[in-house]
Amino acid sequence: MMVVKKASEVTKQDVKEEGARGVTVQWLIDSETGAENFAMRKFTLERGGYTPLHAHDWEHEVYVLSGKGIVTIGDNDFTLEEEKVAYVPPNISHQFRNIGNEDFIFLCIIPLKGGK
Amino acid sequence: MMVVKKASEVTKQDVKEEGARGVTVQWLIDSETGAENFAMRKFTLERGGYTPLHAHDWEHEVYVLSGKGIVTIGDNDFTLEEEKVAYVPPNISHQFRNIGNEDFIFLCIIPLKGGK
Repeated sequence: MMVVKKASEVTKQDVKEEGARGVTVQWLIDSETGAENFAMRKFTLERGGYTPLHAHDWEHEVYVLSGKGIVTIGDNDFTLEEEKVAYVPPNISHQFRNIGNEDFIFLCIIPLKGGK
Repeated sequence: MMVVKKASEVTKQDVKEEGARGVTVQWLIDSETGAENFAMRKFTLERGGYTPLHAHDWEHEVYVLSGKGIVTIGDNDFTLEEEKVAYVPPNISHQFRNIGNEDFIFLCIIPLKGGK
């Protein structure tokens, strides 16, 4: 079990969910790391990329590392850039979109019931 | 309830716990934001700063944003810098120290039972 690692060494997985385009995810901390309560993932949305517009019964806690995007939460759009923080409550439709010219990169923490 | 905010607009609080020096914390997402399961905090350790060497029954999930530090986890020391990820299991003694010339800044997510 690795307790300390470099994010860039964690495998990038394509997000193949319907409605996603140009999205990869790295599971930085999850049950394989020993975590029992919540998982830390790093998302990279390439130029023009977006996550599905969907809702589910778990929350997201998001911290933006770089790039420029928009998150839709319910009926509202919010611009996102470095140092922005977003809380997406459970059961609210949401979508992340890259609106910049570079990769849009953010951390997204979820309870483990929402992941692997 | 603010669902999207800028981290720099969140109040910095001095960490006054015994054994801490030069540490501030910002509670970016917590129960006041609506979170029920876990909280996202941003720690800033000034030059020479350190958190207490202590243990508790909740875990930390850490992502380093900038600066250079060391985390002691049990009997091991690990160097930390931008993009490093650390999982500190429950009930293991741990301490974060700034060993660089700039602020050492990281996110630290905890289950809400470990916080406010």
